[in-house]
Amino acid sequence: MTGSAAAPASTTAAEALVDLLGMVAYGELSAFERMAADARLAPDLRRRAALSEMAAMEIANYGRVAARLTDLGADPEVAMTPYVGVLQAYHDSTEPKDWLEALTKAYVGDGVADDFFHEMAKLIDEPDRQLVLDVIHDKRYDEFAVAEIRAAIEADPKTRNRLSMWARRLVGEVLSQATRVAGQRAALTTLIVTSGGDQAAVQALFRRMTIAHSARMSALGLNN
Amino acid sequence: MTGSAAAPASTTAAEALVDLLGMVAYGELSAFERMAADARLAPDLRRRAALSEMAAMEIANYGRVAARLTDLGADPEVAMTPYVGVLQAYHDSTEPKDWLEALTKAYVGDGVADDFFHEMAKLIDEPDRQLVLDVIHDKRYDEFAVAEIRAAIEADPKTRNRLSMWARRLVGEVLSQATRVAGQRAALTTLIVTSGGDQAAVQALFRRMTIAHSARMSALGLNN
Repeated sequence: MTGSAAAPASTTAAEALVDLLGMVAYGELSAFERMAADARLAPDLRRRAALSEMAAMEIANYGRVAARLTDLGADPEVAMTPYVGVLQAYHDSTEPKDWLEALTKAYVGDGVADDFFHEMAKLIDEPDRQLVLDVIHDKRYDEFAVAEIRAAIEADPKTRNRLSMWARRLVGEVLSQATRVAGQRAALTTLIVTSGGDQAAVQALFRRMTIAHSARMSALGLNN
Repeated sequence: MTGSAAAPASTTAAEALVDLLGMVAYGELSAFERMAADARLAPDLRRRAALSEMAAMEIANYGRVAARLTDLGADPEVAMTPYVGVLQAYHDSTEPKDWLEALTKAYVGDGVADDFFHEMAKLIDEPDRQLVLDVIHDKRYDEFAVAEIRAAIEADPKTRNRLSMWARRLVGEVLSQATRVAGQRAALTTLIVTSGGDQAAVQALFRRMTIAHSARMSALGLNN
């Protein structure tokens, strides 16, 4: 594993690209697994099938990114391996108790991850930029999750408080794991810092991510 | 739920078709869920991704059958509901302990179910006959499972006995649940008995299924 001790001189743009695509690929594979598992929590067969079909889209996206890694001469398995531990730690610490927690987790937690990939996409060249943008966006899932959660809050206003707390915990866990990754993937961190140009640019990145997260909380009708 | 007390006169070919497609649709949805869950047991990321991608094919097949049910004026959810309990009972009683048991279950257990659907397809008209034949066959999965299991037996011959016993248990559970379904779905049972023509034809159906099962056990290198 590349430690934070790796000299910046040894990190190249190609390495950072493989790091990033490995992270995106593993994110898609994990999203597939999580959505497939969460589908079992669905209150009826219609919703269970709907979430399963959305899960299948994630694995198709995984396939595209894995194929690109192979084209770049990288082994997708090797590229994904550094992210297995952190994703597992995230999921272990944020096991949803029910259908609404599962939906909130997918919408809020993956939303933050997608924002991050969106920011990263700006720092890489085509065709990889478009590939990353293509695979992170699944509007259909967002609409489904927002509709379900808003309806649940309307039916029982106490749900709002419970899910608001849950969403805050999720974001806390995401940031905690993201910090762990940043410490381990020198090439990727270098890409962010050097492309961003300066400290202000990095701060702007986090500000944009915070605004996007607030917008998602509002869409759900949750307190930020 | 249609009990076995339902008069045969009330059961029509259209009802039997919806019964059958409901069973196939739910079979695909369940296969998706099981394969997605089993992927977590994979020993490495390459196999985990391969099984996840195969799972996604099942959900695409589910979508085709559900769409056909809707075309026929049936609600896919209603058509699938009678099979939820038996499938759950089957999965609860046959929880795989590891990767090899999971693969054997998918190959042997789903193999028997697919043979049954194959036999049923002969009794229905086009375009539904071809639809059922299309969705049940996934040669890619079979090849993957056979290669994994044969390699495991070669690496450790003791595996043969353990998996042979496991496969026999699976078939016993499949038959036990199939009998339950036959008792509950009058239209479907009537279709089998009347289309088959006589007792000999029904016996021939079960003989063909037994031969196909033996062929799968041989392919795996397992004792029947």
